[in-house]
Parts: sequence; structure tokens; C-alpha cells
Amino acid sequence: MQTTLFLIEITAILVFAYSGMIHARRSDFDYVGVLTIALVSAFGGGTLRDILLGNYPLYWIIHWEFIVYVLLLSPIALLALEFNKDFSSRRILMFIDALGLGLFTASGVGIALEMHTPALPASFIGVITATFGGVLRDVLSNRKPLLFQPTEPLNATCSFTGAWVYIVMLRLNFLPPLALILCIAVTFLFRTVAVIYNWRLPF
Amino acid sequence: MQTTLFLIEITAILVFAYSGMIHARRSDFDYVGVLTIALVSAFGGGTLRDILLGNYPLYWIIHWEFIVYVLLLSPIALLALEFNKDFSSRRILMFIDALGLGLFTASGVGIALEMHTPALPASFIGVITATFGGVLRDVLSNRKPLLFQPTEPLNATCSFTGAWVYIVMLRLNFLPPLALILCIAVTFLFRTVAVIYNWRLPF
Amino acid sequence: MQTTLFLIEITAILVFAYSGMIHARRSDFDYVGVLTIALVSAFGGGTLRDILLGNYPLYWIIHWEFIVYVLLLSPIALLALEFNKDFSSRRILMFIDALGLGLFTASGVGIALEMHTPALPASFIGVITATFGGVLRDVLSNRKPLLFQPTEPLNATCSFTGAWVYIVMLRLNFLPPLALILCIAVTFLFRTVAVIYNWRLPF
Repeated sequence: MQTTLFLIEITAILVFAYSGMIHARRSDFDYVGVLTIALVSAFGGGTLRDILLGNYPLYWIIHWEFIVYVLLLSPIALLALEFNKDFSSRRILMFIDALGLGLFTASGVGIALEMHTPALPASFIGVITATFGGVLRDVLSNRKPLLFQPTEPLNATCSFTGAWVYIVMLRLNFLPPLALILCIAVTFLFRTVAVIYNWRLPF
Repeated sequence: MQTTLFLIEITAILVFAYSGMIHARRSDFDYVGVLTIALVSAFGGGTLRDILLGNYPLYWIIHWEFIVYVLLLSPIALLALEFNKDFSSRRILMFIDALGLGLFTASGVGIALEMHTPALPASFIGVITATFGGVLRDVLSNRKPLLFQPTEPLNATCSFTGAWVYIVMLRLNFLPPLALILCIAVTFLFRTVAVIYNWRLPF
Repeated sequence: MQTTLFLIEITAILVFAYSGMIHARRSDFDYVGVLTIALVSAFGGGTLRDILLGNYPLYWIIHWEFIVYVLLLSPIALLALEFNKDFSSRRILMFIDALGLGLFTASGVGIALEMHTPALPASFIGVITATFGGVLRDVLSNRKPLLFQPTEPLNATCSFTGAWVYIVMLRLNFLPPLALILCIAVTFLFRTVAVIYNWRLPF
């Protein structure tokens, strides 16, 4: 169980970092820019979560091996992008991206509740953890955040739904690991279906 | 007294949220964007104040009913905006906006001083509390912050003046509630007159 | 030694503030904007360092005389800019700017290590301290961060190198003041040479 969660978390961080690099290259940034955007995409949401909760030391200071993984990924990813060969197909990337959304939502709500945050702000912190890495990425790239654009499929909405699944199940006395898995599953499935069928907010 | 302050604070948060929504609609954001910009406009300044002071837990985590009020306001406000009917006239909005500036200034300086912040940084934290919700709103909307534009009437200047009224009166041993009221009153009047007569910084 | 370090730190803060004002004037901001950008350029990196480390109270709240110096500098600098007479030549500004990069790198890594941050995240916090004042300046000015642009000479790279000089020398049991001086010297020289010969990242 622990190993599985750890593998998912690493995968999510790497996918968010990789998608950050793709965005950074489109902005014609140099390697410092690409690496910064990659790190901000991967760690920005969780860092914001810990700062809002006053949860110190930050997780990437304790688990600095996460930074090493992103550093090792970045030259490989850049080479792959240079030769215009996505080393993972768009479909696989989308799947892991949705998994990352679910995992970061679960970690955000979970840590917030552990620190005695009431349910409503805890659900917002879950959504911020899962989506604000991308918002910070767009702000540092001087773009309008993708998250707010009516042309994009549901994203924060899936995370918000997953967060409440977690909260409600804990209230109903489900076991925490079960609530965690269902939160990840619901967020993942909702997001995947939203992307495939291009569901958007009606307003 | 307590009830009056609470009503003013709620009003200020709702007005800042509403003005955030108007800005977000101009950026063609979807509901997630509109709601984020509304929450950031309303809670951004106070959140920055608490993070700069290390004042945990954040006030909207304790008083999460404030978030509920903004959530309840947002669909009503969106409907009103949709049918192009401001539910409050521009004049009333301007008055409450100036009141919000005064109240957030007072809360910023007050909490900073309580945490033994020296007068000068406390006055800056008052101004940040009152004005940086709007700056964060503009940053997330990928615009130049209105606060810095020479075409806008005095804003930070009014807040800074009010902050020093508060600090000086406390030094002169006035009662804290009296200093608070005068801080709010001076900021409010200064801002109102500045908007009506279009006072700007000369440089 | 202490006095020397203090003088360098004050100089670095003033140079970063001054270079922030030049940028702000190019954005056609009013005095509130110019002063905010100046303060963010000078104090933004160190503030981010302290927030990421949970190191409270922030240094400009304790040493608020630093703010006074920037406030005193700002009208003089604005007058100088108005009459188009840089009160320091471009060459001198570049030298002190490189010195500031070195000093902020050293202070970032030093404080991070003191708070038991592992070496890798400590080196990143050194780079963030030295460079993110400029990134925040660009974000608040609604520009793409200069730091990420392939047309600019090496900047974060020099800071990163200096940070590792500091870390490695401490590991080799050099005296901390010696490690500090070498960190500042390496960062300073690397940056100066990079600017003069226009060294850039090759990708």
C-alpha cells in the first residue's frame, strides 16, 4: 500500500514536471526557465498547501529525493522534446495527469484534515494542491491561467468532487485508506471522462 | 461594537469578492476562474498578511463561514452581471469599497502590532492587507496591477495614511477602539474624496 | 567582518531596489508602483526564503531600518531617473548587482543550512533568495521573467555554483566565514565574467 502510494506520488510529480517543461518550451525559456517551470508545476501546489496550513518543514525539503528525480528527468525530457518525440503518448500522459490530480487532491485534503482544518476550507486546500501548480506555472510564464479558461475541460471541478468524496466517507466512518482510494478514483475517472468527452463548465 | 465590526468586515469581503467577479468576467473566465478571482480578491490581502506575519491558522480556515457567504453571493452576482443589472449602483459600490479599504487597513495594522511588529513594517502590512487582494487578482488575470497605474485615483496612499493615524493615536494613548474607528474613517473619507475628485499621485 | 557584511547587504538591497525602480519606470507605473516594485526587488527573494523555511519573524520586520533606506533612496533615484542621469554608471551598477547576487546566495544557503535543510534544497533556496526578487518584480510588472530568457547572461547558474561552493567547503570543514566569503567571491566573479563576455546557457 505505502509503496503503491509512493510510486503514484512520484509518477504524479514527474508527469506534472514533464507537462510543465512542455509549456516552458512553448514560452521560449532557457534551461533555467524550463527547470523552474518544471519544479513549480510539480511542487507549487503542495508548497502552497503547506504554506497556507503553516505545515513546516516543506515536504520537498524533507523528501528532497523528489527534486533529484525531476532533475534527472529534465535533460531526458528536453532531448525528447527537441527531437519532437514525446516519450509517452498523449493518451498515457492524460491518464497519469488525471491520476496526479487525484493524488494531489487526496494529499491536500488529507493533510488539511489532519491539521484540524474544517471540511470546507480543507476541500479548497485539496483543490489548490491539485491545481495551483499549473496556475503558478502560467503566472510565471506570463499567460492567463489555463485553469480559468472556458475552453478547457473540467479540472478543478473534478478535484473538488473528489475532495468531498473523501470528506463525506470519513464522516460516514469509512476507513481512511478506503476514503483515500475512492477520492483518487473518483477524481481520476471524472477528469478522464471530462477530457475524453470535452466536458466544460456551462458558464 | 463587535457586531458592527463583524457586519463591516462581511460587507467588505463581499464587496471585494463582487468587484473581483466583475474583473474576472471581463477576462472571459469560466465559473472556476470567476470564483477563484472572487475569493482571491476578498481573502488574498488578509492571507498575505497572515503568511508574512506567520499568523496561523489563517483566518478563513477558522472563520470558514466567510467562504460560505462568498459562495452564496457568487451565483446571484453572476446572474445580475449576466442581465447587465448591477444590483448595487456604482456609487454605493464605491462607498462600500472605500469602507473595505479602511477596514482591511485597520485589521492589518491591528494584527501586526498585536504580534509586536514595529510601526513601519506594521503600516506596510496594513497597506498590503488592504490592497494586495486586488494585486493578486490582476496577476492571476495576467494584467498590469491597477494599483500601480498613474491613471487610477489614490488607493494605497489612503490606506497608508489611515494606518499611520492608527499607529500615532495608539502612541498618544488613545483607546484602541477609538484609534480603530478613526483609522477606518480617515481611510474611507480620503479614498472617497480621492475617487470623487479623481486625485492621483503627481508622479 | 560584521560591519563589512552589513555594508555589503545594505548595498545589495539598495542596488536591487534601484534596479527595480528602473524596471518599474519602464512599465509607466506611478510612485506606489515604483516603490512596490523597488521593495519587492530588494526584499522579495529574502521574504520567499523565510516563508519557504518558516523562518519567522521576517528579517525586514526585525531590521525595518532596511525599509527606511529604500524609502530614502527612492525619491533621489526617481529624480536621477527623471533627469536621465544614472547616478551610478552602468558598469558600477553591474558590479554591485553581481555582489548582491553573491551575498543573497550566501545568506539564503547559510540560513537554510542553519535550519537543518539538506544540501540540495538549501542550494535551491540560495538561488531563490538571490534571483526571485527579480522574478516577482517581473510578475508584478506583467512581463515574462528576465531570469528565464535565453537572451540574458548567466544568472541563476552563477548563484547555484556559488551555493555549492559554500556547501562543499563546509563539508570539507572549512571555517564558515571563509566558506561564506568564497561563495560570495565565486558567485560575483562568475556573474561578472558572464555579463562581460555575454555567456548564456547553450539550451
